Amino acid sequence: HGGRRRLVSSSEDEPCKKMTVYYHDILYTGNNTANATSAAVTKPAAALSTSHWANGTFFGLLVVFDDLVTEEQALSSEPVARAQGFYFYDKKEEYNAWLAFSLVFNSTAYTGTLNLMGADLMYEKTRDISVVGGTGDFFMSRGIATLSLNAAEGTVYFRLKMDIKLYECYV
Amino acid sequence: HGGRRRLVSSSEDEPCKKMTVYYHDILYTGNNTANATSAAVTKPAAALSTSHWANGTFFGLLVVFDDLVTEEQALSSEPVARAQGFYFYDKKEEYNAWLAFSLVFNSTAYTGTLNLMGADLMYEKTRDISVVGGTGDFFMSRGIATLSLNAAEGTVYFRLKMDIKLYECYV
Amino acid sequence: HGGRRRLVSSSEDEPCKKMTVYYHDILYTGNNTANATSAAVTKPAAALSTSHWANGTFFGLLVVFDDLVTEEQALSSEPVARAQGFYFYDKKEEYNAWLAFSLVFNSTAYTGTLNLMGADLMYEKTRDISVVGGTGDFFMSRGIATLSLNAAEGTVYFRLKMDIKLYECYV
Repeated sequence: HGGRRRLVSSSEDEPCKKMTVYYHDILYTGNNTANATSAAVTKPAAALSTSHWANGTFFGLLVVFDDLVTEEQALSSEPVARAQGFYFYDKKEEYNAWLAFSLVFNSTAYTGTLNLMGADLMYEKTRDISVVGGTGDFFMSRGIATLSLNAAEGTVYFRLKMDIKLYECYV
Repeated sequence: HGGRRRLVSSSEDEPCKKMTVYYHDILYTGNNTANATSAAVTKPAAALSTSHWANGTFFGLLVVFDDLVTEEQALSSEPVARAQGFYFYDKKEEYNAWLAFSLVFNSTAYTGTLNLMGADLMYEKTRDISVVGGTGDFFMSRGIATLSLNAAEGTVYFRLKMDIKLYECYV
Repeated sequence: HGGRRRLVSSSEDEPCKKMTVYYHDILYTGNNTANATSAAVTKPAAALSTSHWANGTFFGLLVVFDDLVTEEQALSSEPVARAQGFYFYDKKEEYNAWLAFSLVFNSTAYTGTLNLMGADLMYEKTRDISVVGGTGDFFMSRGIATLSLNAAEGTVYFRLKMDIKLYECYV
């Protein structure tokens, strides 16, 4: 590692590193202990959550996760990382979330982590969050991850596509 | 966007971008559903919270927010962004907090987000937190936000002045 | 401060700043109000936490802390900072955590803060998290902190060694 040099992209159009991965969130529902990879640890703030929608917007619900991350779309495909972190819902009027997590890589391709945080603006088709740091193969990285909903099954499962572009790398 | 170039300030005195905004937090109290923009989702750790102050320091109370952000001081003035994120109180001896959030801009002036985190040292007249990333018009930004309490009404409402100085920009 | 200049390390082997500190976490247990510096504010997600280990992996337990940080190992040695933030456990199969916090320095050596976040991969002997920003004497810093467990007493106390290396400094 010691010989790596810092590389900063000179343009938005030319990230020093690009990859696409899929994030699979399987929420604990009470009877899926073996499969679940995330669980709510707070309850929604009832009045705020239901003030606009009878079924609630989950305002205040915080979920801790250790989710599978794959290179192919299918949940059953080869994992390349785990996504470890949390998200919470934060809007009265509609579904909207905020999240912070680490992508923990441990594959033949990469070891190390990327650390991300930002607003998951669920009403936007795509939304950008920040890659604020990295370790190991991603030492001192920074960049952007573009998120989009890729699949959902009720409130039990959803899959996000994450297009990751790094603009600061060590190579 | 593609033509933007990276700009790094050579001195603390010359940020590449400066702005001042006001953050308005209206905590849910049980009977202000229409106005509230934030809500507690955990309870204080009772013994630690009251060990120094009878009324408690709220140690452990975590608040999720979707707060209004304006350019003018008045809560009723034109919003320029939403602040979406969370804070929690973290001290036994006095009020003190820690927070992480996104400023989500969607105005004629800006679209995009700034991502911030840091210690909100409430006993200091002003305190600095980090701008750790940005997206859209704030692509890959970094900087400092200086916070100060600007107004408060009991435990229902407070307003923070946020002086934001970016030292890494794409222009 | 105004005269400081930006310094970026050209190599992983030559951080612009290095320090080692010890982080002391004393968890509130119900009868250590005077000494405790942290407290759980959520409960583990019971089924996920105990699905692999009878005693539980604490999956979903979130702890808020205002912990002592020293330059020497001993808890009783001179503090150099407080670590203010939170961690939570996030794995079904074993102990594993994620954390975000600020090191708040207020000593003769330093004033200012460092802001950190990342996966605390407890099953690894050492693990790296990101220093994503800094303020005051650590204005705009970035780097890596290498964590390792240094001591533990049941579930009441643990001490982490934190080797901090900054690769972006203002000097």
